[in-house]
Amino acid sequence: MDTIELVGFVAGALTTIAFIPQVFRAWKLKETRDLSLAMLVLFGFGVLLWACYGFWTGSIPVIAANLITFVLILLLFGLKIRYK
Amino acid sequence: MDTIELVGFVAGALTTIAFIPQVFRAWKLKETRDLSLAMLVLFGFGVLLWACYGFWTGSIPVIAANLITFVLILLLFGLKIRYK
Repeated sequence: MDTIELVGFVAGALTTIAFIPQVFRAWKLKETRDLSLAMLVLFGFGVLLWACYGFWTGSIPVIAANLITFVLILLLFGLKIRYK
Repeated sequence: MDTIELVGFVAGALTTIAFIPQVFRAWKLKETRDLSLAMLVLFGFGVLLWACYGFWTGSIPVIAANLITFVLILLLFGLKIRYK
């Protein structure tokens, strides 16, 4: 793996795992008022389209990172609906 | 622009503009308690690295989308610090 690939890998890992502390925070506080529902919906559709893009261009990392992010956004969406 | 490029473009646009309603919500409510600071920091570093990756691979859309997202995350970070 060269430096450019490594930077892409770390970038993808960071933008994916970033939502883990947000899921924990929503789950712990049982409060999601300050989270924007529009953000979750737009971002959710965005990462699904990124996963399609990865599928069509044959990029496993793009598919994997975006599907994991999608699951985390789906969890946040569920928490947002439950604790609105 | 073929279909795959178009899907990538729409995906990038969605995951970028998604943070606009979140900035507005934080600014309007003057409340950011439910927003995870760790999410903002991890995501901010992630999109900066994505912009570097775009720079090195010569992808203007990747640079543009991630720099715009970085500015929005920076605004949210400022609002999080101000209204914590």
